[in-house]
Amino acid sequence: MLSFWDKYQQASRLNKSLVCLGLDSDLNKLPSSLLKEANPQWIFNREIINATQDKVSCYKPNLAFYLEAGPKGLQALYQTVAHVPSNIPVLLDCKVGDIGNTMSSYAKAFFEDLGVDAITVNPLMGRDVLEPCQDYSGKMIFLLTLTSNPSAIDYLKLDSLYQRIANDIASFDHTKVGAVVGATQRWDLQLMRKLMPDTLFLIPGIGAQGGNVADVMHDAIRDKTDPRILINSSRQIIFADKSIHFAAKAAIVAETLRVEIQSYL
Amino acid sequence: MLSFWDKYQQASRLNKSLVCLGLDSDLNKLPSSLLKEANPQWIFNREIINATQDKVSCYKPNLAFYLEAGPKGLQALYQTVAHVPSNIPVLLDCKVGDIGNTMSSYAKAFFEDLGVDAITVNPLMGRDVLEPCQDYSGKMIFLLTLTSNPSAIDYLKLDSLYQRIANDIASFDHTKVGAVVGATQRWDLQLMRKLMPDTLFLIPGIGAQGGNVADVMHDAIRDKTDPRILINSSRQIIFADKSIHFAAKAAIVAETLRVEIQSYL
Repeated sequence: MLSFWDKYQQASRLNKSLVCLGLDSDLNKLPSSLLKEANPQWIFNREIINATQDKVSCYKPNLAFYLEAGPKGLQALYQTVAHVPSNIPVLLDCKVGDIGNTMSSYAKAFFEDLGVDAITVNPLMGRDVLEPCQDYSGKMIFLLTLTSNPSAIDYLKLDSLYQRIANDIASFDHTKVGAVVGATQRWDLQLMRKLMPDTLFLIPGIGAQGGNVADVMHDAIRDKTDPRILINSSRQIIFADKSIHFAAKAAIVAETLRVEIQSYL
Repeated sequence: MLSFWDKYQQASRLNKSLVCLGLDSDLNKLPSSLLKEANPQWIFNREIINATQDKVSCYKPNLAFYLEAGPKGLQALYQTVAHVPSNIPVLLDCKVGDIGNTMSSYAKAFFEDLGVDAITVNPLMGRDVLEPCQDYSGKMIFLLTLTSNPSAIDYLKLDSLYQRIANDIASFDHTKVGAVVGATQRWDLQLMRKLMPDTLFLIPGIGAQGGNVADVMHDAIRDKTDPRILINSSRQIIFADKSIHFAAKAAIVAETLRVEIQSYL
């Protein structure tokens, strides 16, 4: 089985794309035409994936929107992950961060049972949270480092905690540990790359949150031949159109973002 | 409907108990006699709750162990929460910490759909994570403040981040925001209470992790008539016996802890 790292390399080269497509498939926001389906979240995701699989280098389902739909939502998540082509990595956005047998249980649930290639992890409790994940060869974890929201200043930027986290990430194997760095943190993107020269960045926050592709491509990439970034976009792509043509429109918006990003390389 | 705070007050007085019973009901560790059941986790929890509901002041299911069992595990969690007597609060240990519509989705999933009275929350991303929870009147969130694991020194104790979090918690309504403070942090328990004089503490880490009841009762309580603590115990109670008598034995161990704690009041 391919590792996250291998899939990312393959998909980003084959599709010429650094787009991470966030599957924030909130049941309450789906096209009304799907609500007659037995499991609308699954059907929605299937159509989105079918329409975009040649335009992205990663899919990122967000656990919250599946948990909110109860056991059926979790079923939709399982079906979604299984449907993603085997050469495109799946990164579950769950931001878990626990220790010991609890973290082992999350790792087993997500890496073994659900079968995703990577998860987002909250490092607040320290290095203990990483340990249970390190048994999973080929999987990656992305540690929250500097998030895109305004209150990142409360703790992450307090006393430069984010720089300490970044230094710790840089000490790990870059094929195993990545970093979440918000595109809105414009004045810190260069610093983040300097502190983590080889790390793969998952970059949320472009568009509605105020970050922009130009800043990211100027300051956050490693180099033009091996940029080591994933630029996430979720609702702007998947909910671009609520008619029966939702998937075709999502593909158009994903393609626009893909091309915009490539124009800087 | 009673609030978390009201339920905690009622249950702790009625049962004369400060025990929070952690339902870490890992499917792989259940008594073998239950494995023939259609949903062993649910039956296990039902029996544990039936046997201990006069000995505890809170139940704390841990999301990881239900997610690991897939959609059926989530079903067991729903049934478990519904089975807890209405005068005993249920605190979901999920350590979520996200923002905006993602956090709103977690809050809806846990407070509305699942129907728990409180959740644990990771504050790393700052005050933005609290906002979506504040719409839920009567619910509580417990912020990770100083966890019981060794690597809490990596970030939480770095530059005294935990004290900053504690100060922020103290500024909130104590019936809405509590704190997770590990029993193993013996030298900081008095400081935590000093910084958060009115806050309800959820205290993990007694027993196997090395914390002890004497330290907690000496240093972490508010006062003897209104101690404002919940002392958690999970596996030591629920997995005390793996025979068909598991529930009766769990009740005995829970009662022993209850009495030990009460002896300091």
